[in-house]
Amino acid sequence: MKTISGGVCAPKGFKAGGIWCGIKANSKKRDLALIYSEKSCAAAAMFTTNRVKAASVLVSQKHIAGGKLHAVIANSGNANACTGEAGLAAARRMAELAADEFAISPETVAVASTGVIGVPLPIAAIENSVNALANSLRGDEAGHAAALEAIMTTDTRKKEISVEIDGGARIGGMVKGSGMIHPNMATMLCFLTTDVSISRELLEASLRRAIERSFNRVTVDGDTSTNDMALIMANGASGVTVTSKTEHEAFSLALEGACVSLAKAMARDGEGATKLVTVTVSGAADEKTAGILAKSVASSSLVKAACFGADANWGRILCAMGYAGADFEPGRTSVSFKSKAGEIAVCSNGGPIAFSEETAKQILSEEEIEILISAGTGSGAASAWGCDLTYDYVKINGDYRS
Amino acid sequence: MKTISGGVCAPKGFKAGGIWCGIKANSKKRDLALIYSEKSCAAAAMFTTNRVKAASVLVSQKHIAGGKLHAVIANSGNANACTGEAGLAAARRMAELAADEFAISPETVAVASTGVIGVPLPIAAIENSVNALANSLRGDEAGHAAALEAIMTTDTRKKEISVEIDGGARIGGMVKGSGMIHPNMATMLCFLTTDVSISRELLEASLRRAIERSFNRVTVDGDTSTNDMALIMANGASGVTVTSKTEHEAFSLALEGACVSLAKAMARDGEGATKLVTVTVSGAADEKTAGILAKSVASSSLVKAACFGADANWGRILCAMGYAGADFEPGRTSVSFKSKAGEIAVCSNGGPIAFSEETAKQILSEEEIEILISAGTGSGAASAWGCDLTYDYVKINGDYRS
Repeated sequence: MKTISGGVCAPKGFKAGGIWCGIKANSKKRDLALIYSEKSCAAAAMFTTNRVKAASVLVSQKHIAGGKLHAVIANSGNANACTGEAGLAAARRMAELAADEFAISPETVAVASTGVIGVPLPIAAIENSVNALANSLRGDEAGHAAALEAIMTTDTRKKEISVEIDGGARIGGMVKGSGMIHPNMATMLCFLTTDVSISRELLEASLRRAIERSFNRVTVDGDTSTNDMALIMANGASGVTVTSKTEHEAFSLALEGACVSLAKAMARDGEGATKLVTVTVSGAADEKTAGILAKSVASSSLVKAACFGADANWGRILCAMGYAGADFEPGRTSVSFKSKAGEIAVCSNGGPIAFSEETAKQILSEEEIEILISAGTGSGAASAWGCDLTYDYVKINGDYRS
Repeated sequence: MKTISGGVCAPKGFKAGGIWCGIKANSKKRDLALIYSEKSCAAAAMFTTNRVKAASVLVSQKHIAGGKLHAVIANSGNANACTGEAGLAAARRMAELAADEFAISPETVAVASTGVIGVPLPIAAIENSVNALANSLRGDEAGHAAALEAIMTTDTRKKEISVEIDGGARIGGMVKGSGMIHPNMATMLCFLTTDVSISRELLEASLRRAIERSFNRVTVDGDTSTNDMALIMANGASGVTVTSKTEHEAFSLALEGACVSLAKAMARDGEGATKLVTVTVSGAADEKTAGILAKSVASSSLVKAACFGADANWGRILCAMGYAGADFEPGRTSVSFKSKAGEIAVCSNGGPIAFSEETAKQILSEEEIEILISAGTGSGAASAWGCDLTYDYVKINGDYRS
């Protein structure tokens, strides 16, 4: 597996585009995106677990049930959530408008939205611009870059990936969203493309595993936004088939790698964040336990604030493990900090050890820092990703709607 | 029940004091407190559910198992958590030192600590000062004020209450702690006194109910610090007995009122907070469901940031209810904002309604604001309390140990 350029357009047969249609009335930034495959795609998706689901989620859940997609249309600037029957009609209309451009069935178009909740979606803006959107489709750099721009909200970095796997098939992806205090209250939209030929069942299994080990290690289970969605389309255009167990395992691993890369980029792009924090727990009873402990540490606002201040406050790390609701032995737990400036042990067997505060500060002042935890009870290991908590987070979220 | 002055010294037979013994080496603020009753007290306590428990918690759990206390000794500036065997020995020594001053059994002394985790407790400082601490005990204003000062960390307000109930008996209390982003990661210490005569069993039942409806509606279940503790001592000095069901109900209600008052003060005193936010959910299936929904809204960092910005972002409120893990009907949910500047409805039946943004901003600009939610499914109601999320929160927690 090697990293290549091209984003969601790297796999054969996919085009993408993005325009400004007027939903972001003030900023005039791109707000409408389309990803399209001429060939029909096997498709799988995972949606928010929030009891309040945006209209786009409800409509896409219905469309994806058919297992086939040609396209996904997505807007930013308006979440189309808590908007009642009118919102549902608007989401259905979005799919219909895109479908009409290519004379395909509306049921083969997924819909995604992100932005402010509770404001009616100005569907006329999309009606007036959908032809321009279709005409903006391109298979090159400009295409996927425009599509990505059009789904971004408070994101400060473009988060894309594309990889080539054995046999020359490819996987591409883009993600919108940022790792916040409760990381997954920011809507996450993830669109993945691939040109392998794969059944819907195998595709769904691969997606589920990849999300579990990537985005679910950035976000906190349950705390999902009204609009979260991760979606993959496989059009088979490369001629590479994924059917045997070996082929499926290789594809799943590649998809997992791509999603981990996007998840890390998402964590680093936390609203106002200045640092990427990787928390790795080893020596836990099993991988699941390690994941729960690592996520609890990565999500702790006190740990995040300490990372911002480059403060080697390992006590907060043990405290966050303690309320994670997973088994571990406090008295056998050790903690180190690591970055390109070095590595330093700060806690051994649950207690303090002598260390240089100055060296620790240097290590924690880097832009990428690792918190390494040994739980001392087994051989399960997992990583979770987060960011630091800064003044700017509050600034960004204090008056988001303005 | 009427509010009176006196704090924990309001009930007969209790004295309190606080001094600087040197744990807070730099600030030279008071760091050692004592609350003492000459008469032996029936006692009950609730402790942190964190798997990592401070030495003070472990020692106090053992001492409280006997059901009788004479005193509680507490320090700030050092949590004595993650400090191993030496930490346990230090906590036991604290109880012993206080007990020696009054020739009582160390098992009748509870121990509490708050401050930085993972740093050995300088027990010599306490040994050198415990006589001065005992001599500082007073039954007047200066006594409980000094004790409260000595347990405060990032608290910006003194949080005390005292009430007189039927028959002239009294309840007093003080609390240390503040409502943060994950509110209960800040250590909460709550010491309550009363001069009724009550069995340990009834006292414990009253305490459990009062905590559930007060501090547990500020804090998030499970996310407790290593050191949290709420403790009540009843010395019977008033001659008022609590034995019948009616007497017990009256006492429980009074204790609940006192604890709600302290809990609201704690929420308002959130680190860096400028506003007290009361979230009331009515029309839920039952009280428990209402409490879960209200706490989820009060704990949402996006809702808190919107309160700081006086932004009527009701969509975030529905989103926070949606991931609370409790049943409700999004389509039958309504939301209003209220303060002394007025009341305004912003969401009806889960959808947007027209409202004046200007009026909403005025209402949300007050120092005490209420979020009123009707869940439309039953008759259960509950309130939760929180604060806004401000720049100063990050500042306070960015380098706490310095």
